[in-house]
Amino acid sequence: MAKQNIYDNDVFFEGYKGIRDREVNANKLFEIPALFSLLPDLKGKRILDLGCGFGEHCRRFIEEGAVRVTGIDISEKMLKIAREENSDPAIEYINMPMEDLGKLAENGEKYDLVVSSLALHYVEDFAGVVRNVSNLLREGGEFVFSQEHPLNTCHVGGNRWTRDENGKKMFLNLAYYGVEGEKESTWFVDNVKKYHRTFSTVINTLSEGGFSVERIIEPMPTAELLEKYPDYADLFHKPDFMLVKATKKHKGSY
Amino acid sequence: MAKQNIYDNDVFFEGYKGIRDREVNANKLFEIPALFSLLPDLKGKRILDLGCGFGEHCRRFIEEGAVRVTGIDISEKMLKIAREENSDPAIEYINMPMEDLGKLAENGEKYDLVVSSLALHYVEDFAGVVRNVSNLLREGGEFVFSQEHPLNTCHVGGNRWTRDENGKKMFLNLAYYGVEGEKESTWFVDNVKKYHRTFSTVINTLSEGGFSVERIIEPMPTAELLEKYPDYADLFHKPDFMLVKATKKHKGSY
Repeated sequence: MAKQNIYDNDVFFEGYKGIRDREVNANKLFEIPALFSLLPDLKGKRILDLGCGFGEHCRRFIEEGAVRVTGIDISEKMLKIAREENSDPAIEYINMPMEDLGKLAENGEKYDLVVSSLALHYVEDFAGVVRNVSNLLREGGEFVFSQEHPLNTCHVGGNRWTRDENGKKMFLNLAYYGVEGEKESTWFVDNVKKYHRTFSTVINTLSEGGFSVERIIEPMPTAELLEKYPDYADLFHKPDFMLVKATKKHKGSY
Repeated sequence: MAKQNIYDNDVFFEGYKGIRDREVNANKLFEIPALFSLLPDLKGKRILDLGCGFGEHCRRFIEEGAVRVTGIDISEKMLKIAREENSDPAIEYINMPMEDLGKLAENGEKYDLVVSSLALHYVEDFAGVVRNVSNLLREGGEFVFSQEHPLNTCHVGGNRWTRDENGKKMFLNLAYYGVEGEKESTWFVDNVKKYHRTFSTVINTLSEGGFSVERIIEPMPTAELLEKYPDYADLFHKPDFMLVKATKKHKGSY
């Protein structure tokens, strides 16, 4: 199974870092606040971060009281920055693709919380990740993740948007929502592979993996935010992100 | 709160009955098989059917071993046919809008299973229905329902579809997925009111109402079915239906 490491591509890396460094972006305005709103009180928690990138979240977990954080990422280039900018004695950064998570489980590691920010749509075998996350969580432990919204990962018909004569987005050209699997897209470099999964596949994979889905967020802009950044009105047509909070069921519970 | 009774409108009723009588339609090919695939073994079960219409499902529940079935519907006109065509000593048909479900709960009724086929998108207060369904179910009891898919209940930009020069559907013109609430549409008569809810609202309302979401189906055509009815390929762009199976959590369970 392909393990995709676009983040070690130089062109991609610089482009991506450019967005992340911008003062305002969709991650900072929508995805990160929604992700943290789903987290439990972090005091005393052992946390695993899947696709930790530059380690900003890992450091924030420690600041909010976590006692141990493991961050894994496929990109050594990103972990180098994480170790430089977001190191802490209680954080361990491991260069590892998410598909190899089973190795951590074999070591008998257990976590109270597994978090993943915008990484799972790069993974082909979501069910495999869910199985490993379940093995790595204590019973009652939580899995909180964000991913690109299914309306964002699916095919589009021709151009993504149909615009009016003034260039304003009128509607999303939605095609093949029901056809799952690999999509190639261009994001700084060609052939960034994302995997489209329908809503039902995401929910059912979690349910079959022994999780109870507690809450889902599809972030939308507030009136206040729209006044400042009117372009984000297009999120009403197509949310960019989907966030999920799921709890590992106790054995014998249904 | 409005309780909508379009089914007692003569024009609507005749138009609707015409579709239901057709040998092949999307309900028979996709919705009904998906709904029944989510049901548990019905032997010995007490079942409540919300929006039972002509009572076809109520009779089938009895045939499959249910011991008691209550069918409620807002339309007396539909229940008249239910009583004529699908009566059974173990079936009780009650003329009652879904919004008044609380009255059944006050009577101390308890069910093992609550089913609803394509009725909930007509109900404004979904959270209220979920609360009443929870009160009417025993712990561990199941709530299985179908509704129009959220990609189907939401606004569209202008026409619903963009077609190629041969009239083939290229993509859905998707707009305002994130804006919930009342939508007016024309289905035999003007001003049929449907209520759009996002995916996350459906899931979160069930979760907050004490349910664990077990499984979701967004029915798609099989290759075999497409050979016979190629027009249903448009379901890959936009599923017509969403089906949900949820279990009432035990008290004290999370």
